[in-house]
Amino acid sequence: MSVVKLLDYEDASPEARAVFDDIKATRKVADVNNFWKALAHDPMTLRRTWESLKAVMGPGELDPLVKEMVYVAISATNGCEYCTYSHTAAARAKGMSEAQLMELMAVVGLANETNRLANGLRPPVDAQFKPA
Amino acid sequence: MSVVKLLDYEDASPEARAVFDDIKATRKVADVNNFWKALAHDPMTLRRTWESLKAVMGPGELDPLVKEMVYVAISATNGCEYCTYSHTAAARAKGMSEAQLMELMAVVGLANETNRLANGLRPPVDAQFKPA
Amino acid sequence: MSVVKLLDYEDASPEARAVFDDIKATRKVADVNNFWKALAHDPMTLRRTWESLKAVMGPGELDPLVKEMVYVAISATNGCEYCTYSHTAAARAKGMSEAQLMELMAVVGLANETNRLANGLRPPVDAQFKPA
Amino acid sequence: MSVVKLLDYEDASPEARAVFDDIKATRKVADVNNFWKALAHDPMTLRRTWESLKAVMGPGELDPLVKEMVYVAISATNGCEYCTYSHTAAARAKGMSEAQLMELMAVVGLANETNRLANGLRPPVDAQFKPA
Amino acid sequence: MSVVKLLDYEDASPEARAVFDDIKATRKVADVNNFWKALAHDPMTLRRTWESLKAVMGPGELDPLVKEMVYVAISATNGCEYCTYSHTAAARAKGMSEAQLMELMAVVGLANETNRLANGLRPPVDAQFKPA
Amino acid sequence: MSVVKLLDYEDASPEARAVFDDIKATRKVADVNNFWKALAHDPMTLRRTWESLKAVMGPGELDPLVKEMVYVAISATNGCEYCTYSHTAAARAKGMSEAQLMELMAVVGLANETNRLANGLRPPVDAQFKPA
Repeated sequence: MSVVKLLDYEDASPEARAVFDDIKATRKVADVNNFWKALAHDPMTLRRTWESLKAVMGPGELDPLVKEMVYVAISATNGCEYCTYSHTAAARAKGMSEAQLMELMAVVGLANETNRLANGLRPPVDAQFKPA
Repeated sequence: MSVVKLLDYEDASPEARAVFDDIKATRKVADVNNFWKALAHDPMTLRRTWESLKAVMGPGELDPLVKEMVYVAISATNGCEYCTYSHTAAARAKGMSEAQLMELMAVVGLANETNRLANGLRPPVDAQFKPA
Repeated sequence: MSVVKLLDYEDASPEARAVFDDIKATRKVADVNNFWKALAHDPMTLRRTWESLKAVMGPGELDPLVKEMVYVAISATNGCEYCTYSHTAAARAKGMSEAQLMELMAVVGLANETNRLANGLRPPVDAQFKPA
Repeated sequence: MSVVKLLDYEDASPEARAVFDDIKATRKVADVNNFWKALAHDPMTLRRTWESLKAVMGPGELDPLVKEMVYVAISATNGCEYCTYSHTAAARAKGMSEAQLMELMAVVGLANETNRLANGLRPPVDAQFKPA
Repeated sequence: MSVVKLLDYEDASPEARAVFDDIKATRKVADVNNFWKALAHDPMTLRRTWESLKAVMGPGELDPLVKEMVYVAISATNGCEYCTYSHTAAARAKGMSEAQLMELMAVVGLANETNRLANGLRPPVDAQFKPA
Repeated sequence: MSVVKLLDYEDASPEARAVFDDIKATRKVADVNNFWKALAHDPMTLRRTWESLKAVMGPGELDPLVKEMVYVAISATNGCEYCTYSHTAAARAKGMSEAQLMELMAVVGLANETNRLANGLRPPVDAQFKPA
């Protein structure tokens, strides 16, 4: 059903296997998700995407759970089925409660609503919102 | 430049004025933003939108600043200029630092990237991501 | 400011002029809008787009004003500034009142909201919604 | 398959049940759709969404069938599978013929096409489209 | 599962059959794809869409394979499942290798990422990017 | 007008300056574009984005001009003003003619149209489009 054949560890190139190894070690999991098995056809993109994810989603200025919830919000906005399931699961694993998920969805819904009210009525940006 | 004439307080209907009054009292501001002046042509939608915003964005399961950052993330994803400026300003007013904004943008960019990798390659959703 | 130079009648090719003539005659206007002047660099796309617009937006199964409002709704959803202004103007020219525009925007906002609630929570499609 | 467990009437909170009762009475149906059963985890969002839908989609400045077709148009534009099925079914229940659905889709397709032609070529908005 | 019943040749109107015949002859295939069987409910839209596709996707200023890959890129960006499968298949039939598909996806991902960084941070367009 | 202050070379951190230097050397330009000056607030994201761009958009399986045109196509689809101007300029610098740009836009328009016809009518994916 995938557009490209999913590559399991034994079918992957040495470069792809090295990324798989790092994903498994970092996440302490026995196998990588289907997303990575699809990307494994292109070891450079596989590595770049994984390195970006590690750099961006790890500890930083924002709490990792907050960042995971932002990811869920964007995935729902874009209608990405795979990402909605995988990042909601990741957010739950990081402690998101069902009540938090529901409140997150309320924000997602409302932002998508008012984005279109603004794009349809096109009020000018208020002067006080513009950085000096 | 707005698609509809912006309605100032003196031009607004009594029903719209009542909402303006509540916005000003709740936010402790002297005037409402242009967004509300555009919505004032339809007092029902003005009231409903404002009541929703108060209910959703106030204290709850998630921190109000987190919710404001989710709003910024969605506005950038949808390309809503007005919302990007107004909600970034709101998040800053609630304490978002420039470093937090930049990290938020990194998450927004990455989520939009991997959403398309998943939508283009279409790996099946892993069984463990599916709720029982 | 346009990505391509706008082509006025005197600069356009004979094939593009023929389309300009038909637009002006059909709409009873002295000049064509900037959209067509941009498309005039490619007479085939200019003609195809204009012929499609005439065929789709004219009288048919749906009222022309209804179709123009659907166009406005989609333009606001997609965040197309040019299209929002031009099709709102067209809908007004066909009789859309300010109250109708505001109610249309309320539908646009709500549909964009519930689209994301459904895409984030992913309830299965109810059996009765599926055509036999 | 749903991201959250669907809540049937017997599993729902009293607040959610009250909304379910109103939906069933208003629509004269024996049970609510899956969308509402997913939202029932958050009675506040359930109530707010239902009240908005009742207020916006009922009789007003625009014909209810026209509003339902606008909903279908936006759902197809956003690629929301659940919403496309449920609102197309709702529009058919309100009298939309197959010929009207097909013509609606033609408008949806065309608007999405010209939105991108305008966003790619970026002609300036014509002066006559700008409200005074 | 389709929103409208798929119309096979024997169920289609003479006008739709004529388009089916042209698709089969042009593509040298025994039957048309499901997309066309859905559109067949509206012979005018069926014909217009097919004629547009023939005109746009055939030989021209750009290589047909390049155009097919652009189609894939947009389908992944918009999250259109049907289009992603059908146009990836078409691109492969025109010679796209798996390595080219993966590199295309890398561009798609990156463009969607930087589009949002630009839409969130809103740097002004540099003067040198604006056509004279 | 930018959401964050643009950082010129003299205001940027040493880490950001190093990236600026690489951009200028690679592209043989006297200064970097505004996009990079906005990203400079976060040297990690600045470096990651620039390194990704160099890796993805350089020579590979696809011609660099083809990749630049795919970038333009996605930017127009997403309605990103900055990206549309900057990547159209980049494609022209790499040799894209006006006729090629117009044909590209025709593909962009058509793909956005048929994506919605498919998402609105939801024909099942044909068996032959599914990889084995």
